[in-house]
Amino acid sequence: MADYHAPTGEQLFVLETVAGLESLSALPGFGDATPELAGQILEESARLAEQGFAPLNMIGDREGARLSEGRVTLPAGFAEAYRDYVEAGWNGLSADPAHGGQGLPFVLSVAVQEQFTAANMAFSLCPMLTLSAIEALQAHGDAAMKALYLPHLVSGHWAGTMLLTEPQAGSDVGALRTSATPTDDGTYRLRGQKIFITWGEHDLAENIIHFVLARLPDAPAGSKGISLFLVPKYLPDADGKPGIRNDIRCIALEHKMGIHASPTCTMALGEEGACVGWLIGQPHGGMAAMFTMMNHARINVGNQGVAIAERAWQDARAYAAERVQFGPIIGHADVRRMLMTMHSLTQAARAIVYANAAAVDRAHSEPDPETRAYWKRRADLLTPISKAWATDVGIEVSSLAIQVHGGAGFIEETGVAQHYRDARIAAIYEGTNGIQAMDLAGRKLRLDNGKAMAELESAIRRDIDDWRDQEARQAMTVALERLAQAREAMLAHDSAGVGAAASPFLALCGAVAGGWLLGLQAEEAERRLVAGQADQGMLKSKRAAATFFLRQRLPVALAQIEAVRASPSQLLTGSDFPSA
Amino acid sequence: MADYHAPTGEQLFVLETVAGLESLSALPGFGDATPELAGQILEESARLAEQGFAPLNMIGDREGARLSEGRVTLPAGFAEAYRDYVEAGWNGLSADPAHGGQGLPFVLSVAVQEQFTAANMAFSLCPMLTLSAIEALQAHGDAAMKALYLPHLVSGHWAGTMLLTEPQAGSDVGALRTSATPTDDGTYRLRGQKIFITWGEHDLAENIIHFVLARLPDAPAGSKGISLFLVPKYLPDADGKPGIRNDIRCIALEHKMGIHASPTCTMALGEEGACVGWLIGQPHGGMAAMFTMMNHARINVGNQGVAIAERAWQDARAYAAERVQFGPIIGHADVRRMLMTMHSLTQAARAIVYANAAAVDRAHSEPDPETRAYWKRRADLLTPISKAWATDVGIEVSSLAIQVHGGAGFIEETGVAQHYRDARIAAIYEGTNGIQAMDLAGRKLRLDNGKAMAELESAIRRDIDDWRDQEARQAMTVALERLAQAREAMLAHDSAGVGAAASPFLALCGAVAGGWLLGLQAEEAERRLVAGQADQGMLKSKRAAATFFLRQRLPVALAQIEAVRASPSQLLTGSDFPSA
Repeated sequence: MADYHAPTGEQLFVLETVAGLESLSALPGFGDATPELAGQILEESARLAEQGFAPLNMIGDREGARLSEGRVTLPAGFAEAYRDYVEAGWNGLSADPAHGGQGLPFVLSVAVQEQFTAANMAFSLCPMLTLSAIEALQAHGDAAMKALYLPHLVSGHWAGTMLLTEPQAGSDVGALRTSATPTDDGTYRLRGQKIFITWGEHDLAENIIHFVLARLPDAPAGSKGISLFLVPKYLPDADGKPGIRNDIRCIALEHKMGIHASPTCTMALGEEGACVGWLIGQPHGGMAAMFTMMNHARINVGNQGVAIAERAWQDARAYAAERVQFGPIIGHADVRRMLMTMHSLTQAARAIVYANAAAVDRAHSEPDPETRAYWKRRADLLTPISKAWATDVGIEVSSLAIQVHGGAGFIEETGVAQHYRDARIAAIYEGTNGIQAMDLAGRKLRLDNGKAMAELESAIRRDIDDWRDQEARQAMTVALERLAQAREAMLAHDSAGVGAAASPFLALCGAVAGGWLLGLQAEEAERRLVAGQADQGMLKSKRAAATFFLRQRLPVALAQIEAVRASPSQLLTGSDFPSA
Repeated sequence: MADYHAPTGEQLFVLETVAGLESLSALPGFGDATPELAGQILEESARLAEQGFAPLNMIGDREGARLSEGRVTLPAGFAEAYRDYVEAGWNGLSADPAHGGQGLPFVLSVAVQEQFTAANMAFSLCPMLTLSAIEALQAHGDAAMKALYLPHLVSGHWAGTMLLTEPQAGSDVGALRTSATPTDDGTYRLRGQKIFITWGEHDLAENIIHFVLARLPDAPAGSKGISLFLVPKYLPDADGKPGIRNDIRCIALEHKMGIHASPTCTMALGEEGACVGWLIGQPHGGMAAMFTMMNHARINVGNQGVAIAERAWQDARAYAAERVQFGPIIGHADVRRMLMTMHSLTQAARAIVYANAAAVDRAHSEPDPETRAYWKRRADLLTPISKAWATDVGIEVSSLAIQVHGGAGFIEETGVAQHYRDARIAAIYEGTNGIQAMDLAGRKLRLDNGKAMAELESAIRRDIDDWRDQEARQAMTVALERLAQAREAMLAHDSAGVGAAASPFLALCGAVAGGWLLGLQAEEAERRLVAGQADQGMLKSKRAAATFFLRQRLPVALAQIEAVRASPSQLLTGSDFPSA
């Protein structure tokens, strides 16, 4: 594994050209978010990511999280790195200043998170979950709860988690059985077991605030009977300090293929004593609150795809330059094809995720309500694409990194195998990529009569009209035609047809969005090159990545139109699949 | 991990329809290879694969091979299973009866190997390497050597290995440095270190016969100065029994991402004493001998892709039928799409590999020399496609198996993560898939003015003319046009263009071949359905797999034509790839 170097120049370029950082910083509350400050922030976070988080990645994989007598410990160095992260204030970058945050745009925090995740994906999940918890509490908590918990979560001295899954309730969250019984003092007693709880228990933070989905005694069946509870590991005492140990305990850790330093816990609630919790928001309002947590989390998981792709790409590039077989292998066309694929996919995925995060920022902060609504539609439309397409990119790019390494890639000491193993989970958690495809094709596409997609298509059309690169414009014109055909086919499908076509539809949408945003960057790169601006190597590679993607990769994704149009009857039904 | 059930009905169907078993059994020497006997053989091997090999797969992954004081040991049960394999005579299935083999067609041994590999990929590598060693010795050994070694290798009491790679000599075999010095008694003394030696040391067989590439003192530089040597672990004594321990030792095992029960050894030759070897074939004739070993091995590795895909598919199918989330998940369209993709890819890959193996049989056994030459060209053309396309299928299908399992797929105890980890190596060893693509596009396509590919295209055209399924015929007609365009583009490229386009060209060829052979099977399935023959479920799924592949998957692969045609200048050169 080569050293990680945060691609700050590339990140800033995407923030400027794709996320429109300049215009974001003109919005109320974002005045500090100038490109200049963003550059300084990214240089600063890069230092901690490169020097604090990255060196722990391999040891985290090798030693993993350990459970002993209910306590989960991480390898040496994790506690110190987390302390450095908290003390520098990274956790509160985009949180509300009223609770100690810095109030910077979400997209900037996404760029910072990309660095920490690329440096150490397993580790970065801990703060990532805290950020989702903060979102949920800001949106649904009452004033007292916010005052008590938010400052600690925003600082990162306390960590947050999400407890959703149970053995019988995965994608079908509504099937969960954990119960919450009201008591006279207004608190609740929770009982049940949760599985697959990421960073459910650990020794990095002073307290852990669990956000738990459970059912009240009078709850209706299914997903309409789910409520959200706040369950602290230590109950805050009269001074708001961690007090009595609550009965929420880690009783097992999963043995996983990757992200070994991220403890994946089975949590027992109320099995030994009283598990005390507080209701967040309305009774039976848990699903809405969960989606608040999940929407940010889905963009953040898409960002994991970007991060692991970037890391894998860096390793492959370094190895290809140094490994000699018939000359340095970076000179061989097939290796260059692999690197080119990795490079363009990573940039496309990054652009989609950053565009998505910037849309979230505008949806919150544009002064005009209609403009906010426009960006809300865009953000919602892009979220399943960010999550699924970018995590698929993470898998593909980390696989290519192994291939570039040849036999050495299969040896664990080399380090790229870890990326491949780590990357695989991102296509599964926070809603599998199949769930994302259904969210896109079954919900987001259909909302307001397909308005969000129509707006996206118009935005792309406006953009490409200005492009000076005729071939790129031509490629995107074809792509827009296919996208429109795909949209029409999806809207014409019945529900069985939508389900059958959802995944290829998402793949097609992701590639069109990626091609658009790569082309956009290439145009700006061309302008800067003509103007003789700095970082010519990066700017030239922008043009090359766009050309490669638009000419060679995009047509393959557009050919998914056949699968989008196909009758669902081309898929066998369950009982017709033969078994040996 | 579900129990493994060998798909004997499916395998026999492919042997009959794709490999032409009936006509093979009419060839000299293959009289025993009737479909009836083949069915009995596959039922018999299935029993050992299912009951002997499969139960050791997970324990092999968990415990792995261990090295202690130069001795490599496998987990409990491996020795017994190997003994059962040897005693039942499986190792000699397709070997020359003159040396104790049964003389059955190679394609039948490939079908049997598929079962053992699906049951336990790591374990199956041990006999697989012995089979390659037998090939090399049959082709290049002298009479005395054959008489002394072949009976033991054919029986499997002795195992064979290949020692090619050195740290600086991977794909560039010609860079190897291991030396062989002649002595007065006609033997040689070898000195050097080899890495990545699969099953280089173990305790399953009575002796291990190493096939070592090394340089004679007067050797010219590069690949023209390489010779092949036979180096036994124990030197045979006067009675031909394992005698004195030779100085060829395992000094380290690699810590790999997968196939943990396959010891990947660093071998030291002549470091402590005399490492005695015998020259096989001509001085400096090692590359030719290596290709003899490798050609079979490449088909066998392609077969690993088939095997691991079959295993992963079986696990995913079983899990999808039993896992309930909003009803059994096998009812959800997106899950059915994944299963359909797995099912059709696995069948297409199996068909290509079996067609390849049957072509090898005809190249050996057809009475007419021109017919033999025809099949030799076909076998040579298909070999890189079998190796690369089928191993890519193994990776994709095992990844989909994880996805079908959701979160459970990422947990090691479930077992599908092992398939994903194991499958990854097959795209690397025996020549990376990039090397295969160059072999196809740079050599095989160009031999005899592109004769082999022209013949393949004619064969496909003849076949589809007879198809009753018009849509399938139409899909393959389009595919043949694209293939012809791709072939012309490849022949027009200069060497830089060939290298740049080789991988997408192979992907396109593989999909066209897969579509053809699936369509072929669907036609025969239709005939048998109409005739009311048994196994209707399998026959119906054949039609469905062909339709799905031809209509939804093939168009995506055909869109690779753009990458095939593209100028190599679309790939950045090494120094232009930006680094962070």
